[in-house]
This record gives sequence, C-alpha cells and structure tokens, in this order.
Amino acid sequence: VASRARGTLPFDVADRRLAAAAWGRLTEPGDPAAGVLRHHLGDSEALDWLLHLEAREAIGGLPAPLADVASARAVQWPRAVARWLPRLATLDIRRELEVLHRLGGRLVIPEDEHWPQQLDDLGITAPAALWVRGELTTGPGIALVGARAATSYGEHLAARFAHDLAEEGFVVISGGAYGIDAAAHRGALAAGGRTWALLAGGVDRLYPAGNSSLLSSIIDSGAVISEAPCGTAPMRSRFLQRNRLIAALAEATVVVEAAWRSGAINTASHAGELLRPLGAVPGPVTSMASAGCHRLLRENNAVCVTDVAEIRELVPGGAPAPQQHELDPGLLDGLDPLARQVLDALPARSSAAVPSLVRSSGLSSIEVRAALGRLELAGRAARDGAGWCRLRD
Amino acid sequence: VASRARGTLPFDVADRRLAAAAWGRLTEPGDPAAGVLRHHLGDSEALDWLLHLEAREAIGGLPAPLADVASARAVQWPRAVARWLPRLATLDIRRELEVLHRLGGRLVIPEDEHWPQQLDDLGITAPAALWVRGELTTGPGIALVGARAATSYGEHLAARFAHDLAEEGFVVISGGAYGIDAAAHRGALAAGGRTWALLAGGVDRLYPAGNSSLLSSIIDSGAVISEAPCGTAPMRSRFLQRNRLIAALAEATVVVEAAWRSGAINTASHAGELLRPLGAVPGPVTSMASAGCHRLLRENNAVCVTDVAEIRELVPGGAPAPQQHELDPGLLDGLDPLARQVLDALPARSSAAVPSLVRSSGLSSIEVRAALGRLELAGRAARDGAGWCRLRD
Repeated sequence: VASRARGTLPFDVADRRLAAAAWGRLTEPGDPAAGVLRHHLGDSEALDWLLHLEAREAIGGLPAPLADVASARAVQWPRAVARWLPRLATLDIRRELEVLHRLGGRLVIPEDEHWPQQLDDLGITAPAALWVRGELTTGPGIALVGARAATSYGEHLAARFAHDLAEEGFVVISGGAYGIDAAAHRGALAAGGRTWALLAGGVDRLYPAGNSSLLSSIIDSGAVISEAPCGTAPMRSRFLQRNRLIAALAEATVVVEAAWRSGAINTASHAGELLRPLGAVPGPVTSMASAGCHRLLRENNAVCVTDVAEIRELVPGGAPAPQQHELDPGLLDGLDPLARQVLDALPARSSAAVPSLVRSSGLSSIEVRAALGRLELAGRAARDGAGWCRLRD
Repeated sequence: VASRARGTLPFDVADRRLAAAAWGRLTEPGDPAAGVLRHHLGDSEALDWLLHLEAREAIGGLPAPLADVASARAVQWPRAVARWLPRLATLDIRRELEVLHRLGGRLVIPEDEHWPQQLDDLGITAPAALWVRGELTTGPGIALVGARAATSYGEHLAARFAHDLAEEGFVVISGGAYGIDAAAHRGALAAGGRTWALLAGGVDRLYPAGNSSLLSSIIDSGAVISEAPCGTAPMRSRFLQRNRLIAALAEATVVVEAAWRSGAINTASHAGELLRPLGAVPGPVTSMASAGCHRLLRENNAVCVTDVAEIRELVPGGAPAPQQHELDPGLLDGLDPLARQVLDALPARSSAAVPSLVRSSGLSSIEVRAALGRLELAGRAARDGAGWCRLRD
C-alpha cells in the first residue's frame, strides 16, 4: 500500500503541529484509543510508535510505553491499529494544511494561546487539533442547537436569543445547519456579535451548500471550526461526534426545538455527560418540532428556559435573571390577607356595617376593624354613615 | 347579638349531620383551629364546647378537653373563637340545608358511603362536610386546571385531555370557571363522562353566571360541589381554599395554562403539599398564558406532560404511556453503528472499492468487509464489479 519507505512519513513527525493535525486525519473524531495513546505519549511520539509498529509488521498488543496505564488495557489495540494503518499509508497532512492556509485558515493545537481550554473536559476524546477559519477569541459561549426541520416559532426564538446573548458578549455556538442553527448564527451576526459554527466535515467545504454565504459571514466575524482536516466529508457519525465539541465548547447548551430523537438531543446528551448546564425551550405540545425539548424536560435532563435571562442563569456565575414577569396585580396589591378578606367582603354597590362584615368575612370584630383602618389608609375603603364602602377595586 | 337563649342553638347539636354542616357556616374554609377542635372532640362535641364557652363568656384559653393535644397549643384560641362567635349568634344551619334540599342537593359527611376518602389527606384542614348537587360516585379523578384568560391553544388541549380521560373512566375535576376549567368540564361532558366542579361559594349560586348552563349540565351527569353552605358568596380567600379541595380530590393535577401567578399555580402548590403528582403542559414561550406552567417546570415542581398518555402516567399505578412517538427512521434503521458508518462512506452515485471505503470510513479492512456483508444482507449495498454500491438510502 505504502508508496514510500516503511517507518517514515513525508513530513517531520517531531513537528508537534503536523503531528497533531495528522491524528485528525488518521482517526475518526472521538477515537478513544488514539486519545489514550496521544495523552500518554504525546502526538509526535504516538505517531512515531505507530510508524515503527507498522515497520515491525506487528499489529496489536498493548503498546509497550503504556504497559502501566490502566485505561490502555481497556482498549482493543489490534482493532484500533487496524483502523489507523490504512490511512497512515497515504498520510501527508501537509496537503490538507496547505488547503487550510490557502483559505486563510489556521490550525489551533492545545499549546496555542487561543486553544479553548474547555475542550480538555472531553478527556481522551478531546480533539488533537482544530481546523479554524476565522478568529477563536476567548469568551464565554452558549450553544443554541435544534432541528433542521424547525418551525418559524423556533427560528424566531433562536434568532432572538442569539441576538441578545451575542449583544451581552456571549459567543453563540451552533452547528451551521439549516433551521435552528442557521437562525442562531444569523441572530448573533445581526447583533454584530461573535458566533462559531462547528462543522462535521472539513472547513474547506462550507456545508450545507445552502448555508455557504451564511458560513462565509461567520468566518468574517467569528469562526468556522472542525476537528476534521480539510477534505473530510461530513458523515453521520462525524455529525454525532461534532456535537460533543459544541457541548464542550459552550458553558451551557440550549435546545430550542428538536424532534423526539434528533441530533440536538445527541448534543444535549453530550452536555449532560460533560455536566454542562442544559436548557430546553418549551413549545406547543401540538408541534413535533418541540417533542424533543419536552422529552428533555419530562425526563428531567434539562431546565425549562423561556427567555434570555433564564438562559443566562444556566451559566455558572451568570447573573440571575431579573424578575421581569408581569404579576397579577390582584395578588400583589400590597394588602395583607386579612385586609384583602375584608375588602372582598365589602359589598360592591352599597355600604356594610361592621357586624355584617364580621359575619361575611369570617373574621373577628377586632380583626375587621383593624383591617378597615388599613384599607382606609390605603384609600381602598371609606366610612359611609354607620357602615363602610369600597372605594375602588 | 343573639336573639335566643345563650348556650343553645335552634337545632339539635347532637345531630352529626347538622353539626358538620354548621361548622362549614361558622368558619371560613380550611380553618385549622376548627380542624383541631373537631378532630379531637367530634363535630357535635366541638359545637357544644363552643356554645358553653359562649355561655360562660370566657373566650380563649386552651380548650380543657385538648389540654394534652400538642397541636392545640399552636392555635391562638382567643383569635379563633373571636372569629366564630359572631356567626354562632345567628346560626341556624337548617335554613341553608333546606335551600340545598330544595335544589335536589344533599350534604355528604365523612361517615357517608360516598365521602371522598382522599379528602382526609387534608388533615386538620379537611372540610367538615360537602354540599353536593349531583352524584359523588367514586372513581379515580384527575384535575385539569388553568387560567380563566386562556388561549384557544389551552382550551383546545383542556377539552381534548378531558374528553379522553373521561372516556377512560377518570372523573375530570375542575373549578367551574371560565377558560381552562370550562373547557375541561365541556370535554368530559362531550365524552359522556363524569366531571366535578368545585365551587368557592354555595352550590345554590352557579357562579360564574356565564357558566350556569354548563354547571347545570355538570349537575346532571356529575357533581357541583362546595364545602361552603348555600348562601355563601364566592370570595377570593374562598377560591384559594377551594383549590385545596380540587388538589385533594384528584389523584393527579394538571395545569394546562396559567399565568406566572394565578389560582392554578395555587392549586398546584396545594397538590405539591399533599404530595399529589403534578403535571404542567408546556406552550409557546411567547404566550403569557403558559408562563405559570413553564415556571412550574423550571422550578421542578411539575412533570412536563404533553398528551393523555403522559397524564395517565402521573397517576400512581396508572398504565405507562405507550411509546407512540414518531422516531427518526434514520436513527433506528436497524443498522449497527459500523454498518451505518460504511453505508455513509459509500458514494451516492458511483461504486467504491474496499480500500477506498477503509480510508473514508476510518474503519479497518476487516470491519469494512463484515459491514458490507451485513449491508448486502439488509439489501442496502450490492457488489458492483470490483467495488460496492449503495442500493437505497
């Protein structure tokens, strides 16, 4: 298979950037075996081990340098290595990097300043590198995710939430797909804010094609990001793994609309595994596009969020939502319960004497007189001859 | 005040029905002091104690027969008695009962066969008697409650849920008000089922007037119920206490639509205090009529319910909801993850050889060949010359 000398690669394996990028090409996203190997050896050393393993034509067995690593014993090494070697044979990651650089993008690896530290929470499934077009400036991020088959209700909310969150300085993180994702990105862009689109394939393919101009705008004022090298096609399993990046990058994830089973629910379960706060937006029970949100609420996997203040509250240390709901004035009219009870007992169109109010309210004479005094002070009741009348309701 | 001999009443205090009815007239609903007294002495004996207390003109102090009762020490007896005595002076409960009987209604007390045992969970705030027009047949009940200012969305759901629950034999319990309550009663009636309306005032006044013909229909095929004697006006505090009866009578309570603060939320909190299951129906976050439901969900005080099956699941021992949600066929197409991954790697409009599929899927050669075999058996892939092609997606 190999068109070159065994045990060598056409680039310098010791170059940490090239080695990190190469692991994204050798493995499918989230490969835990590669994660264990890279974590314990380092990207270059792990690649070197694999190269010389191939040279010895001895595939499998616990890697000698990991003999004492407990998590390494859980890995089926022959199976893992058998997946990597076919790609190793044709590996020259400089080609994919050249495509990235030609597009103005750059590789970000964990040693880099702008590496999002929150990805480290993914442990052995953390990506080796990110392929980025745009700017990875730091700042708290909130993921707004949901159905491609969204309703106008969901798209309206996603855009509004994204707009307001972006205005408050949050990075709005989503998946670049049609429906909720696109609405969220657009809302953030409309606010002049930052938004990140995480792609399942390479960032050289602005997928889906119908969103390519939106994704171009995101590159200009935010970032389009993938852990897959340029040239990688978006495939289902890569979408599911891409979702773990969205969940890990965001301080909180909000599912705006989602079918009973859907990619957004998958993102939600990643957020749950990472112990990241998860919100779900309710909607009409007659809308299948909200069924997944209701399922998350019903199974107690998500917090019910209905506005930006409640979304902000999801973020650890986020300012508590100001109490801005309309209150029923009747229940909060400043009257104590006894005064309220006497006011209710006052007839609407006539006046009543105290003994009559005592019987109709069920309170004692002392309580009724005291309550009438408070009502008089509050301008709600007045003396009317021998009785009392109501002033306004 | 009294127009008769002190220490006497114009009816036989030893008559347990009359005594129970009398306590409903002497006190406001849910009076805990009366509850402690009645619980420990019995209705007739408690009335007798009160009568002779008045005769001695010594109001207050711990009732001698309750000297050893811990809960009695928490009651402010002078205050409680001062509330009851004004009504005692004019008490003749036979008049109110006569009105009830003339309307075809009857008094139901705890000793009666049809007394709803679940009211006993209210402890010392349980009613002394129910004033009933219609039939109190037993059977599991579910309360559907909500805003008077309901939307067509909420009314539609209330009617549909009530219809289906009534058809399954549940008694649909609500408050007889406009909006959600009326829709729930109507839905149950449309199914030919049973429904109970709990009123805050006496059952001689079919309140609100606009629902009087609905309430008449409820009397014909269910029951209109109050703990307040005939002649009692509906007042705010009585509505709030009436809500505890709705919550106690029902095996589960569902809030269909409710403002941020509302009577339905009050019913919900009674259900919570009684440890009765509570459901809340989500709705559009843009609808203030669903804000109270979302609050219950957000504060984890209610379970999210979206259909009758989920409401039925609230009831202890209720049949679990059948899994009837539409599933994304793509996620449950019967393929294992590896076969799915190879299927996704097969190009849509051409064929591919195994080595190419190995590199594009990221799987090993052995895994790809095995997956192709399973895909062939499932009729999803076929050999095409030296390669493989996809059969249908």
